[in-house]
Parts: sequence; structure tokens; C-alpha cells
Amino acid sequence: MSAKTELLTPSALRSVLTFTVNLARTAGTLILEGSQAVQSASDVNEKKNSVDLVTEYDVAVEELVKSEIAKAYPGFKFIGEESYSAGARPDLTDEPTFCVDPIDGTTNFVHGFPFACISLGLIYQKRPVLGVVFNPFLEHLYTAIEGQGAYLTRGSSQPLKLPLAAPKPLNSLSKALVAIEWGSDRGEGTLTGKSSSFLRLAGDPAEGIVGGRMAHSLRSLGSAALNFAMVAQGGLDMYWEIGCWPWDVCAGIVIAQESGGVVTGSHTALTSATSGNPSTDPFKVTPEILAGRKYLVIRAIADTPSESGREAQQRIAREFYETVEDVDPK
Amino acid sequence: MSAKTELLTPSALRSVLTFTVNLARTAGTLILEGSQAVQSASDVNEKKNSVDLVTEYDVAVEELVKSEIAKAYPGFKFIGEESYSAGARPDLTDEPTFCVDPIDGTTNFVHGFPFACISLGLIYQKRPVLGVVFNPFLEHLYTAIEGQGAYLTRGSSQPLKLPLAAPKPLNSLSKALVAIEWGSDRGEGTLTGKSSSFLRLAGDPAEGIVGGRMAHSLRSLGSAALNFAMVAQGGLDMYWEIGCWPWDVCAGIVIAQESGGVVTGSHTALTSATSGNPSTDPFKVTPEILAGRKYLVIRAIADTPSESGREAQQRIAREFYETVEDVDPK
Repeated sequence: MSAKTELLTPSALRSVLTFTVNLARTAGTLILEGSQAVQSASDVNEKKNSVDLVTEYDVAVEELVKSEIAKAYPGFKFIGEESYSAGARPDLTDEPTFCVDPIDGTTNFVHGFPFACISLGLIYQKRPVLGVVFNPFLEHLYTAIEGQGAYLTRGSSQPLKLPLAAPKPLNSLSKALVAIEWGSDRGEGTLTGKSSSFLRLAGDPAEGIVGGRMAHSLRSLGSAALNFAMVAQGGLDMYWEIGCWPWDVCAGIVIAQESGGVVTGSHTALTSATSGNPSTDPFKVTPEILAGRKYLVIRAIADTPSESGREAQQRIAREFYETVEDVDPK
Repeated sequence: MSAKTELLTPSALRSVLTFTVNLARTAGTLILEGSQAVQSASDVNEKKNSVDLVTEYDVAVEELVKSEIAKAYPGFKFIGEESYSAGARPDLTDEPTFCVDPIDGTTNFVHGFPFACISLGLIYQKRPVLGVVFNPFLEHLYTAIEGQGAYLTRGSSQPLKLPLAAPKPLNSLSKALVAIEWGSDRGEGTLTGKSSSFLRLAGDPAEGIVGGRMAHSLRSLGSAALNFAMVAQGGLDMYWEIGCWPWDVCAGIVIAQESGGVVTGSHTALTSATSGNPSTDPFKVTPEILAGRKYLVIRAIADTPSESGREAQQRIAREFYETVEDVDPK
């Protein structure tokens, strides 16, 4: 491992980023082609054809990515959604490990709702350190390297540093625009807990919604990686997710963090992190949080005379978890 | 009125469209400027400053649009969100009437969530006949004229006819991607009815959600006009809205209809329309529906051997209204 450790200097990571961006753009072309193929699929036996085609393109994109990575970085490990589903479940080690969702937002991909992307994260020493999220439908490319900032490149324009505007304060949830998702787990256990949480987030306590926070509003785009990116951009104040997997969030975590945002896990993860030693970072993304399937992302918040931005992020995270139920995904 | 009636031939409407598109692009520049100003507003007394700025830009865009229309089409009437709020409530007549939301998606505009737009509709003989919706954040321009099709122009590309892909069948709500919105009315009466409707749309009846339809998923973009446009594009199968106003939907109605989609109003409006004389169009947008503040939009659906697309749209509309509650907006 020592030789590889040498590789991942800041400058080495920039070289990995160049490779990863090229790979994301190549994969993007395949994703667009796939979405068009799914939408023009034969009408006979519609569902089967669509599902087959989605799986076919999901696998094709992952195989492309996996083989290109193996050629360029033969020592790197690989965790991918499709490989995982097929049984490949490598332990997380200190070695550089790509963590990839070939198509994030597959429902959008199927319907031609233009918010699907490829999400390519790199984990190193058990920590996400590089992220690339590319939405080929809108040609929005989000990139970040640990310690080197996060950027958005739209079309062939110059990269813009994230967040796009200087961070503002965030006094309470009542001022927040919050992304939530309905997910794929639609049974009574998970969905009713989510649904009543959504109602409290949106509801007006002065007009009969007990525990209501009257958030500015709720949004649902249908892609975890793009929600992380939108928080990084500053277009969303926060994003709450239950049920995702590491490959959905790995790249997004780096992009959000490098824009000044923070990421935490479940209620328990937040409580234990923020009640600990004050010198430790309460928003450190541990391997347990990365794999914990529960995520809360909060944008960069400005320092004020009474509170640092980091303190404000902790305050908002606590207010959020006082409001929503901690349901367990299947 | 007879002289003006002459004006609105198909070719005259194309000339109005050219004018309206130029106006939308000019207004778009002002909207972008406004969104940046709001986002960099002073942090002191944040809320007041933001609200003032939003109103300022809303009014400024509407004044610009209103004065340009008055210069180019002095005989046309004007209904605008800000003018209406200020007390101007003209009756709907047979005369050409612009119906304008200067900034649709103001919450998005405030937060820099890139789904805000200007919505410019033209009503003639009490029927929406022309629509322009322009999102300056993504440079997406949607246009339609009655009888002349609907188009999307992205950036400076060539216009694409809508829907973007050939219509597919839609066998049930369980196959649908549905846009819903949380709106601004967050009290117990409206919001709990909406929230339980959302739960039934998303929920799995096989796993304990009574009345659940297990829709593919639910999306919320936060702009009525852009939801109409996305249904027209084919990226959403349907959009349900309670609480909007004519200026939010007027342009979108033409864009949706010209892409093969249909628009109806409340439960009652649908029932009375679809149980009437079979030779009348059950999806005719009457002045009552236009002003009724309840809307259901369904994309173009392919004809199949067993059912025409129009019959399928009626079937889906009925299934939808069996699922959701008919709450009343404030």
C-alpha cells in the first residue's frame, strides 16, 4: 500500500480527477443513449422491456467504468451498485477505492425526467476524498477534491466555485428549502414515518399542524447525488435521505463538504458525534456513516457575531432531527 | 373587437409569439439579476430584505412586461399576478388578454434553486391560445400556439417539438412519475389532505398503505409553469396542483395541450365533463377551470388497439381522482 499512498498527493488526486471527469463524460453519452432507448422501447409488454433495458444500461455503464479504472489504476479497488447487487462486496480498506453509481436517478432515466447522473466517488484511507457527478441531460458537471474546493461546470463554460453565492445565515428550518425523497421502500413502516415527517417539515404549527416547522418548501428531484450537488451549489439548504447506499452518496459527500457543507448520518450518529469531545469534528464522515444509509446534508452557513457557521450547522441538524422520525430502511 | 379578431389568425399569433419570446428573454435577464441580488442581500434582518427584494423584482418584471405589451398591442388586456394583488381584477372577455406571472417559482428564485421562470399566456375568446415559459437559469424556453404545436428551445439550439419522444401507453398510476407541490397553504385543512393524498399516491397497497397506488415516484420542482412544461416534454406523466392562479397555468395549459397532453380541473369538473355529451371534449379548458385553482395535467398517451390515447387520459384522470382528496385552497 505504501507505493499507492505516495500516489494520492493533492497533485495525484488532480490527475485522478482529470481521468474521472473524462470517464464521466464518456459514460454520460451512454446514459443519454440508454434513456432514449428506454423511452422508445417497444410498447408491447412495456414494463419488462423497460426494466430489462435499464438493467442493461446500468450494467453497461458500470462495466465501462470498471474496465477503464482497472486499466488506468490497476491497484485501485472498486465498489459499484451493479457489482454489489451481483454479490461483490469488498471490505472497505485503506486502499484507494472507487465507489460508483453508474446511473443515479434510474426512475428519472426511465421517464426522461432530466435529473439522472453518473456518480463517481473515490475513497482513500476509508474517507471520501474525490467526487465527480455528471448529469448529461443538462450537461452539469460537479467535481471536488478534498482540500481543493468544489466546482460546477455547465456545458462548456468555465468551472464555477461552489457555493455559487456567498453563504448566508440560516436561522431556523422555517427559512429552509429542503430536499426530501419518496424512495423505493413504500411499505407502511418506512413510508408512513417519512410522510408524517414531511408533513411536520412543511406544516404551519399556528394552523393546526402539531410540531410543524413551516419550512420554505420541500423539493424532490429524484437523484441523491444531484441533491447533494444542489446543496453544495447553494440552491437547496438541506437534503434528508433514508435508504441510499454508499455509491449514491460518496461523490456527493466530497462535493458538499468542499463547498462548506456538512454531512451526518442518523439521529444516533449526530447525537454521539456532537456530544463528544469538543475538539473532534462532529461532522466527520466515518465508514459507519458512509454505509449507514441515512444522511443529512446542510449547506455552508455564514458565521455571525453570535455563532460560527459550523455551530449553526449543528443547531439546524438538531432542529431537523427533533422534527423527523428515524425510520429504518429495508 | 372585430378588428382585433382579424388580428389573431394563425399567422398573427406567430407574430405575437415572436414578440412574446423576445419579451421573455429580456425579462429573464432581469430575473437572473434579481435572484443574484436576493441571494447576496444583506444578512442583517435577512427576511425583510429578501421579501422586499422579491416583491421589488416581481413588480419590476411585471411592469416591464405590461408596458412592452401596451406599446406593441395597445388593444390587448392584461392580467398579472402583481396587478391582481394590487386590486386590478379585469373580467375575462372575448378580447385578447395576456395572463402573466412575472416570476413563477419565487421560493426557488429566492434560494437560487434553478427552476424559476416567467410565464406569459395569451387568452383569446376566453381560451388560452398561446404560451411562453422561459427558465433563464437553465435557458429552457417552452413555446406553443393553439393548433401549431409546442416546442422546447434549450440555449441557442434548434427548437425541438414536444413531446421529446413518441408517446407511450400509460396503463395505470403505478407506472406514473407524478409532480406534486406542497404549496404555500400549510394549515391543517389543506395540507393534511394533500399529505395523505401524496401518501396514497406513493404507497404500496401490498405493504399496508390502504388505497396506495405505488406510483413510480413523486417529484416537486416548485414551479407550476415548469411542471406543465415538463409534462409537455414527456419527463413527467402528470402533475396535480391545488392553489394556483390563472397566471401560473395559462401559458402551461397551451404548451401541455399542444404536446398532446390534457388539462382538467377539480374532481367535479372532471366528472361533469366526462359524463356529458360524448361529442363534447371532456378536457376543454373552460374559464371556470382556468380560474378554478385546481388542475390535473396528463401527458400525451399512445393509442393502443384497445383504447385511444384520449380514452386512456380519461381513465388515468379518473384513477387519480379516486386516489386523492379534493381539498379546498384558501
